[in-house]
Amino acid sequence: MLLNCDMGEAFGAWVMGQDEHIMPFVDQANIACGFHASDPLTMAKTVSLAKQHSVSVGAHPGFPDLVGFGRRKMDIAAAELKALIQYQVGALQGICQSQGMNLSYVKLHGALYNQMASNEMTLDIVMQAVSEISDTLPLMVMAVPEREAISRHAERYGLTILYEAFADRLYTADGRLTPRSQTDAVHSSVELIEQQVLGLLQRSEVTTETDQVLAVNADSICIHGDNPHALQAVKRVRRLLQG
Amino acid sequence: MLLNCDMGEAFGAWVMGQDEHIMPFVDQANIACGFHASDPLTMAKTVSLAKQHSVSVGAHPGFPDLVGFGRRKMDIAAAELKALIQYQVGALQGICQSQGMNLSYVKLHGALYNQMASNEMTLDIVMQAVSEISDTLPLMVMAVPEREAISRHAERYGLTILYEAFADRLYTADGRLTPRSQTDAVHSSVELIEQQVLGLLQRSEVTTETDQVLAVNADSICIHGDNPHALQAVKRVRRLLQG
Amino acid sequence: MLLNCDMGEAFGAWVMGQDEHIMPFVDQANIACGFHASDPLTMAKTVSLAKQHSVSVGAHPGFPDLVGFGRRKMDIAAAELKALIQYQVGALQGICQSQGMNLSYVKLHGALYNQMASNEMTLDIVMQAVSEISDTLPLMVMAVPEREAISRHAERYGLTILYEAFADRLYTADGRLTPRSQTDAVHSSVELIEQQVLGLLQRSEVTTETDQVLAVNADSICIHGDNPHALQAVKRVRRLLQG
Amino acid sequence: MLLNCDMGEAFGAWVMGQDEHIMPFVDQANIACGFHASDPLTMAKTVSLAKQHSVSVGAHPGFPDLVGFGRRKMDIAAAELKALIQYQVGALQGICQSQGMNLSYVKLHGALYNQMASNEMTLDIVMQAVSEISDTLPLMVMAVPEREAISRHAERYGLTILYEAFADRLYTADGRLTPRSQTDAVHSSVELIEQQVLGLLQRSEVTTETDQVLAVNADSICIHGDNPHALQAVKRVRRLLQG
Repeated sequence: MLLNCDMGEAFGAWVMGQDEHIMPFVDQANIACGFHASDPLTMAKTVSLAKQHSVSVGAHPGFPDLVGFGRRKMDIAAAELKALIQYQVGALQGICQSQGMNLSYVKLHGALYNQMASNEMTLDIVMQAVSEISDTLPLMVMAVPEREAISRHAERYGLTILYEAFADRLYTADGRLTPRSQTDAVHSSVELIEQQVLGLLQRSEVTTETDQVLAVNADSICIHGDNPHALQAVKRVRRLLQG
Repeated sequence: MLLNCDMGEAFGAWVMGQDEHIMPFVDQANIACGFHASDPLTMAKTVSLAKQHSVSVGAHPGFPDLVGFGRRKMDIAAAELKALIQYQVGALQGICQSQGMNLSYVKLHGALYNQMASNEMTLDIVMQAVSEISDTLPLMVMAVPEREAISRHAERYGLTILYEAFADRLYTADGRLTPRSQTDAVHSSVELIEQQVLGLLQRSEVTTETDQVLAVNADSICIHGDNPHALQAVKRVRRLLQG
Repeated sequence: MLLNCDMGEAFGAWVMGQDEHIMPFVDQANIACGFHASDPLTMAKTVSLAKQHSVSVGAHPGFPDLVGFGRRKMDIAAAELKALIQYQVGALQGICQSQGMNLSYVKLHGALYNQMASNEMTLDIVMQAVSEISDTLPLMVMAVPEREAISRHAERYGLTILYEAFADRLYTADGRLTPRSQTDAVHSSVELIEQQVLGLLQRSEVTTETDQVLAVNADSICIHGDNPHALQAVKRVRRLLQG
Repeated sequence: MLLNCDMGEAFGAWVMGQDEHIMPFVDQANIACGFHASDPLTMAKTVSLAKQHSVSVGAHPGFPDLVGFGRRKMDIAAAELKALIQYQVGALQGICQSQGMNLSYVKLHGALYNQMASNEMTLDIVMQAVSEISDTLPLMVMAVPEREAISRHAERYGLTILYEAFADRLYTADGRLTPRSQTDAVHSSVELIEQQVLGLLQRSEVTTETDQVLAVNADSICIHGDNPHALQAVKRVRRLLQG
């Protein structure tokens, strides 16, 4: 089980996250690509930091909405959606290449991630977009109960899927994330995070908001870098993973 | 001798140039990368059009200045300049890859092109930026009298240089372009353009604003797509090249 | 009955519309405010053109989406929506003041106009936004069958409403515009436009896509500047209005 | 003597400064207008905070360069410069009006502030821009040794000038700010700041980087909100001002 975290979310003079402190503890860095966060120099610095700590780099494309941090729905037509994913992935790939790094996977951000999870036509466009860029570039998606259907869909495009679970977010009964608008959507303590990770590691399951046990088979665990406990949580989860 | 033209300079709903009419007549399309013009969908459509007409695609990165169309000086530090070139080149490369096309070269746009031509530190950063992306990606620059010095500089980075001359712009005595602020900077008739191209093809020379003859050895001839006579000029130059 | 038209929709070097030709024939210019189209210099030039032809200036704020020309739904929270309307209206007002012009009204653009028409909470926020800027600044909305309810709603905020009808768009049976995705949504001939305007002027009614007659009481008629027949249509409608 | 501070420099989800803590201690808030920092909602919140603490609001327009935080030179023509100042000032004025607040002055930001200070043609355009917006809106500039010449220049436009001195920046011998590229450009301790303010208050003078004493007559003292000691410094200066 690997540990992934969103990185490179600064923008110009504005700081976000604690990339330098968190990078040493993760396996995969999802790096923002300039549309919802980041800028070319921030991306170059973040790739360099990932390289220094032997962390895999994933492209983390989002909607073109800096003010909304890519967290707001936008109604973008299929052809444009495909192009803006390929643009962002290519941009980060160009920066990776320049530093002798490979791009290891693609993971969508925010409202685009959610739209892909809830709308099959969007999922299809995203799969096309990523598989067209490269035969061997995997797409990381949420390990939902229907993961077999997603894998079958991906086979049409020869696309490898990586599945992730969330360490710091509450799950609904149908295996989705409780919306951020709900007060308990983000785990408020490191203990809750640790408990959820242990469930994922030892029993491949999480406890939902309705107190049900849900099977979750994941390749990677995500911790959000903007979680107030992010750094402490990342260190603890790292320890559990090394367990 | 090849013929290159700036392409993909639309932005969202705003049209610029006559790409569909001009593409059939050129060899190399310099495609804007979203910072001074273009957007992901426009880039995807322009790459598709280039593919259809077997035209080579070059990345045409510029300053991050849509309102100024990348034609205004900006004071950007070296590390950021390198990153924003690699970002833009990578973005177009991602879109090319997705359509089974290769990126054939890099040519800078507007004020960034001019800064590289007049400032050796900028030239050095640009050479680093392009050579880091790929060992085999050439940089297209203006065929100035000092082209040997540029070639030697490029050798340090193992970088191939392509030299271009301009069909529709007046030259100064020292082999630069007369600034657009001067009234005769852009050739106002197809005949002037034709005459300049003939000089380049037959004698490898141009006549400068001071009526001197200047040697210009170029691999490619550029016609600007925003020239009011662009389409007619491109057709005539195409004929001369086939001559 | 007045004639209004969207103006100032250029962006940097990109042209849109035929403002110089159309301005002499309209009474009210809806000027874009830099979020979906226009930029400060374009706004200043358009206000100057309106002043020269004694045309009233209306602020035409839209969603922050240049690439989508403000025509795509965005999910923006109420407080931000209010602020971005007041920002854009203020910006145009600042430019008007600087030229000794008054801002005469506010009319929303594109997807924001549509959201206000279909979502009462949005309408409420827009009314708050405009009435807070000034006690005397009217809001222009579509003359829908429920215009009395809109007027009553506006009274809560002491807000004056101006109602507009559309010259060049097909109407649905419930008095809305047929979506642009339908082929006949925009009148393809000047004759159709002329006929619709005559109905509005002489009988205060339009014929809908279902061939029904619908009462439409409007203060102003809108012609879209991006209609291919815009200039000819504007001239003809001007003649009918002077009738 | 008043105390002014840059405020509203957040951007979307990105935080900057400590506006809520600093606002209670200042007299004048220079609020960014969305081109180099801030966004409509941030501006609305910052105006509301200023109102709550009876702080005067100044418009703080800058170059259109979010990534560079308006600190990089841009080569913008006079007509556009005027328009982008009037746009930004108008935008903040619209938000102030909506909250029953007045806009009290204009103070330029970053590279635009510096260009105005070093280039008389820019100063002239800025004076035109501000005086055209309103007969009574003052422009705040640096209290340089040549302040009389500036005041005479401003009289041509009937423009009131407010002069400011800097609490946390080192001065050159000719009464300018030591460039930020020099290590000692920003005072690194609250004591240095306090000492400079005492000199300004008690003797209307500062000690320059060359250890000379320079007369500085100012109406207001500026502390930068991004100074690491900003909050502590603001509190101490407030105490000194209350004497």
